[in-house]
Amino acid sequence: MRLFPKEIDFFEIFDTASVNLTKAASILVALMENFTDIDRKAKEIYEVEQEGDILTHDIMKKLNKTFITPIDREDLHALASSLDDVLDLIWGAADRMSVFKLKESTPEATVMAKNLLMTAEVIHKAIHMLKEKNYSHMQEYCIEINRLENRMDRDFRDALAKLFDDYKNDPVLIIKWKEIYEHLEDASDKCEDVANVLEAIVLKHA
Amino acid sequence: MRLFPKEIDFFEIFDTASVNLTKAASILVALMENFTDIDRKAKEIYEVEQEGDILTHDIMKKLNKTFITPIDREDLHALASSLDDVLDLIWGAADRMSVFKLKESTPEATVMAKNLLMTAEVIHKAIHMLKEKNYSHMQEYCIEINRLENRMDRDFRDALAKLFDDYKNDPVLIIKWKEIYEHLEDASDKCEDVANVLEAIVLKHA
Amino acid sequence: MRLFPKEIDFFEIFDTASVNLTKAASILVALMENFTDIDRKAKEIYEVEQEGDILTHDIMKKLNKTFITPIDREDLHALASSLDDVLDLIWGAADRMSVFKLKESTPEATVMAKNLLMTAEVIHKAIHMLKEKNYSHMQEYCIEINRLENRMDRDFRDALAKLFDDYKNDPVLIIKWKEIYEHLEDASDKCEDVANVLEAIVLKHA
Repeated sequence: MRLFPKEIDFFEIFDTASVNLTKAASILVALMENFTDIDRKAKEIYEVEQEGDILTHDIMKKLNKTFITPIDREDLHALASSLDDVLDLIWGAADRMSVFKLKESTPEATVMAKNLLMTAEVIHKAIHMLKEKNYSHMQEYCIEINRLENRMDRDFRDALAKLFDDYKNDPVLIIKWKEIYEHLEDASDKCEDVANVLEAIVLKHA
Repeated sequence: MRLFPKEIDFFEIFDTASVNLTKAASILVALMENFTDIDRKAKEIYEVEQEGDILTHDIMKKLNKTFITPIDREDLHALASSLDDVLDLIWGAADRMSVFKLKESTPEATVMAKNLLMTAEVIHKAIHMLKEKNYSHMQEYCIEINRLENRMDRDFRDALAKLFDDYKNDPVLIIKWKEIYEHLEDASDKCEDVANVLEAIVLKHA
Repeated sequence: MRLFPKEIDFFEIFDTASVNLTKAASILVALMENFTDIDRKAKEIYEVEQEGDILTHDIMKKLNKTFITPIDREDLHALASSLDDVLDLIWGAADRMSVFKLKESTPEATVMAKNLLMTAEVIHKAIHMLKEKNYSHMQEYCIEINRLENRMDRDFRDALAKLFDDYKNDPVLIIKWKEIYEHLEDASDKCEDVANVLEAIVLKHA
């Protein structure tokens, strides 16, 4: 047990985790926009996801070993856990593209992937502000994440409606894309969880 | 940070949240029973859900700003969060009816929606007892919520069996209704989460 | 409130809960391997699941009634809750076999059920070590659970790919098996949650 941990540690790992998340989201956009080399791009996202697992494990270990944490322990735990969930779901979406042997993407999937990338970038900025203890900017970024999540809700809804319209005679394709869209929408929900933890931290410190 | 918050605040907001939940469930029953004006009724549930979001946000904010809470902070947090989940899932079910452009309801969906309404009403009573610190009545209502959830499990199972029997040649319709039934069943599961938090509060105070 | 609870209580109940889990997983393997008497075997799993519910409820009650717990309260809570989730999902998988009136199993389902049984057995050993306060052995078992979960991920992925290949002209069968595979995969994810809680306990006590 370390009574006086170097505070910077946690923030640095969270910063790296959010950079990692942005990287995964940006490969996902590349995969959806330009439907070539799917297996290679999926493998790249897999490697980023594995990297994320190591970071999460590292945070959890440090949390359990450290007596006093700069931010409430349960908030750091929830933050690590929800960042990990977003990354898992991005990987899950990319992996399904490969497992389902899809031949092309849809404009809806590209829109949703771009939304996720934007959200990941805002999460990265918010976590940077956490390190800087700039709580008012953090708050603004959280509002922005919630705004992007609401947009994702609408985009998911539209994608679902279009899917059932376009492929009413191809139920197997409906099953496949519905699952991918759900992964992207779930990823966005988990981004909202990230924002909720960050907002709780702001409220406790502002 | 307020050291001595007005205790009544939290209970009042939870009471309003549970009234709100009952309202959403009752519009859902109306929607399933009488399959007209789907978009209008879905919109009404959406507005109730938005109202619920504001209440949840308000509770979370007060929780993070208040030093001493009348009930363990994590229990109040879990209660707000599970009430919010139930409402989200009711809205999700209604929204899918509209997105999937369904032409009619099923008797199974009506039964499940009515179950949810009954559960929401018992939750409202249990939360009222929380405010009154009447823990023995709370306990009874929790048992009733669990009983209703078990019934929902059976109703969901029957609905699923009937769905696969009735529409074996219409896989797209199976996909659509399966998703709606799952939303209703998930909503009921989250009601059980509400009951679990309320029971934990009873055990700590009885 | 009991200030000095008999420590042994919690460990004994968790031990029983993990034996119970192993029993459910082993009936699931029997069900998948030898596709006869489905309803009877599903009913047996149901009874084990009901038994598990009673154990979970007992743990939660004792946790809420006990002032000092041998292990952090929230860890015991999370452990009980994730063991319960695994059991629920095993029961869910078995129940769907019966509700969907499937005529035969798949080799993939058998492989996944066997994985789950192996994982349940390792969980049982890890929980036995918790009682013995043998944290280094616990740690090894946690690594083993994670290894089995990674294998389950790959098996699930392969099962999904094969399902969409084999039944591309039978979307209803895809819907049915996809749901069962997902239950098995979710059960394995919840086993990982069990391992994560156990690892957190190791880190705090080692």
